[in-house]
Amino acid sequence: MLNFNFYRPTDFYFGRGEEKRTGEVCRKHGAKKVLLHFGGQSAVKSGLIARVEQSLTDAGVQYVSLGGVQPNPRAELVYQGIELCRKEGVDLVLAVGGGSVIDSAKAIAMGVPYEGDFWDFFMGGKVPTTALPVGCVLTIAAAGSEGSNSCVIDCVVDGIVKKKGTNFQTNVCTFSILNPELTFTLPPFQTACGACDIMCHVFERYFTNTPAVKMTDELCEGVLRTVVQMLPRVMKDPHDYEARANIMWASTLAHNNLLGVDREQDWASHRIEHELSAFYDCAHGAGLAVVCPAWMTYVYKHDVMRFAQFAVNVMGCQMDYEHPENTALSGIAALRRLWGDAGLPLNFKELGAKREDIPTLVANIGGPEHTEGHFLVLHKHDIAEILTLAADYER
Amino acid sequence: MLNFNFYRPTDFYFGRGEEKRTGEVCRKHGAKKVLLHFGGQSAVKSGLIARVEQSLTDAGVQYVSLGGVQPNPRAELVYQGIELCRKEGVDLVLAVGGGSVIDSAKAIAMGVPYEGDFWDFFMGGKVPTTALPVGCVLTIAAAGSEGSNSCVIDCVVDGIVKKKGTNFQTNVCTFSILNPELTFTLPPFQTACGACDIMCHVFERYFTNTPAVKMTDELCEGVLRTVVQMLPRVMKDPHDYEARANIMWASTLAHNNLLGVDREQDWASHRIEHELSAFYDCAHGAGLAVVCPAWMTYVYKHDVMRFAQFAVNVMGCQMDYEHPENTALSGIAALRRLWGDAGLPLNFKELGAKREDIPTLVANIGGPEHTEGHFLVLHKHDIAEILTLAADYER
Repeated sequence: MLNFNFYRPTDFYFGRGEEKRTGEVCRKHGAKKVLLHFGGQSAVKSGLIARVEQSLTDAGVQYVSLGGVQPNPRAELVYQGIELCRKEGVDLVLAVGGGSVIDSAKAIAMGVPYEGDFWDFFMGGKVPTTALPVGCVLTIAAAGSEGSNSCVIDCVVDGIVKKKGTNFQTNVCTFSILNPELTFTLPPFQTACGACDIMCHVFERYFTNTPAVKMTDELCEGVLRTVVQMLPRVMKDPHDYEARANIMWASTLAHNNLLGVDREQDWASHRIEHELSAFYDCAHGAGLAVVCPAWMTYVYKHDVMRFAQFAVNVMGCQMDYEHPENTALSGIAALRRLWGDAGLPLNFKELGAKREDIPTLVANIGGPEHTEGHFLVLHKHDIAEILTLAADYER
Repeated sequence: MLNFNFYRPTDFYFGRGEEKRTGEVCRKHGAKKVLLHFGGQSAVKSGLIARVEQSLTDAGVQYVSLGGVQPNPRAELVYQGIELCRKEGVDLVLAVGGGSVIDSAKAIAMGVPYEGDFWDFFMGGKVPTTALPVGCVLTIAAAGSEGSNSCVIDCVVDGIVKKKGTNFQTNVCTFSILNPELTFTLPPFQTACGACDIMCHVFERYFTNTPAVKMTDELCEGVLRTVVQMLPRVMKDPHDYEARANIMWASTLAHNNLLGVDREQDWASHRIEHELSAFYDCAHGAGLAVVCPAWMTYVYKHDVMRFAQFAVNVMGCQMDYEHPENTALSGIAALRRLWGDAGLPLNFKELGAKREDIPTLVANIGGPEHTEGHFLVLHKHDIAEILTLAADYER
């Protein structure tokens, strides 16, 4: 077990109707004027934005609005948001939406008090010392941005879309309001993508070389088993509140780093997937459903017993004590079945990606000596092999 | 699943040598002059107090000291601490010790800015609106006070020792420094008492009538399994860092309410035990080892499948599908074996309690109509029966 710091001072409000407390919670945390930041028209049409606006008005909190955040959120809108916040004297950025909206809000929040270009923080080196507080009303269980210190933004640099992630303490939400009912109307595909993203946030932590991490292993397996049990329920009945609620809280726990504090983490699957979603503008969770099993298949021999533990404790496989390798592989197969049954793509073709793009994808990921991951350090030829596995998978 | 608020903004520093950062962490959280609060001479003799003092001095943080906190901490010292803090202009209370020291620090912290008697907050009704920040350097994995909103204090009222607990947001530590090495020198009995306390914090949440709490059930079982696996290791080798570390982080997770946010909780065992430790001045964990299995045995028929789940998922028992009741009982028996093997008392005689005191203990717990617990609501005659079971248990 490694030494660690864990500091996630987010004030969570969870359950039915909790979004009606948004104004009160903004005031509790000192906000007087907020940027109401959201995505497309679905949050407007559903009446959610109106409910949040009413709640702000009732609490005497002023607001200015900025909609239009896209999936794989773009830097252009972040610049607009920063300018608007400065002009209007906004003191808190309120995201109403999923991970993309929250990440866009986080980027705006770090940009407002910074005199330079906010993109400096994403290109490495610069760490923000201060940021506006960010609050959120979550509408999809997936990215875990409501509890994490992560923020991922796309920026067009020299004509190429660059997807860059940051992990700063200032990215941690001041408050997060989670009402599982708000996820009832999500399309099944988005629901499945979210569940995949949640599980992959755990995998990045679970597959580690750090020994003696029983306590957090238990947390990892518990979050994974919860999603494994609840995903088929929400696919069958999108209005199953209890299943939606368990998945929503799992999404927060999966990525606020409680599960990974004490260990070396991997993150190769995420980084490889980022190239796919930047290149094809596909859903992050869909990309992960294709990349992650390929990563597992490529690396499992590095620690067969770890993958056997996953197969038995999470996927419910029988342990083959004579051939643990078989157990490891059956766990990966069971995971692909779970995701396939939920309608996720399982290979390049189903994702809309092309085998012939692999050299370009690998080139985009970094220079010739670039590596990814820690469980097993991957060089560029390893990444190419993983993408080839992902391309060729049969359903 | 119930709606909930979860807000535990504690800044955790975990691992070997982390106490050397105490001064730096105090400064990070704005402290200029702290009350260094501790218990007996063991922390002084071990050199821990000197290391913390050095760290404060190095960081330019002033301090005044107040030692002498006893197990089952007393109000008298709280009054002294409040006076000292006011006189010295202290802006943070730094507890170096276990749950008793931290709780004494929390009581001082809530008393300093309050014009009335701090005991008002313990007699019910009054809620503190503000308190000094509290930080801690933890020396025993047990009470979970390092991450919880709890504070338990003993006060002599009309000649009788009253043990009273409070749960306030202002009781949550601003920071907690957890070095498992500091628990290496704990006597085996205290180690075992701590493990019992940790498990009971989970039980109070795990045995619930709230349905559909899969996610937090998984967390509960994960913390319990961790203690079940690690307790025999630390009893065998007190210097087993990894086992100590897993238990220490389990102690925090067991009681910061992450495991119980979404459900009705019980707390009957704790309340009944508080009468024992107030009456006999016994260790809280030792009292729980006697009371909790008796509570389980008395209530398990209320939800046999819940106790069967505990037996299988936590204690590793085989499920008897034809007679789930047998499985439930075998889980309780396995728990008593675990605790007995760790040297904990398993009945009144081993605890130093007397069967003939039961009427007095029951009288002390409240008026004739008083009830405890929520899993199964216990009237005073139920409590008497539970104490009788606890008294008569054979090893």
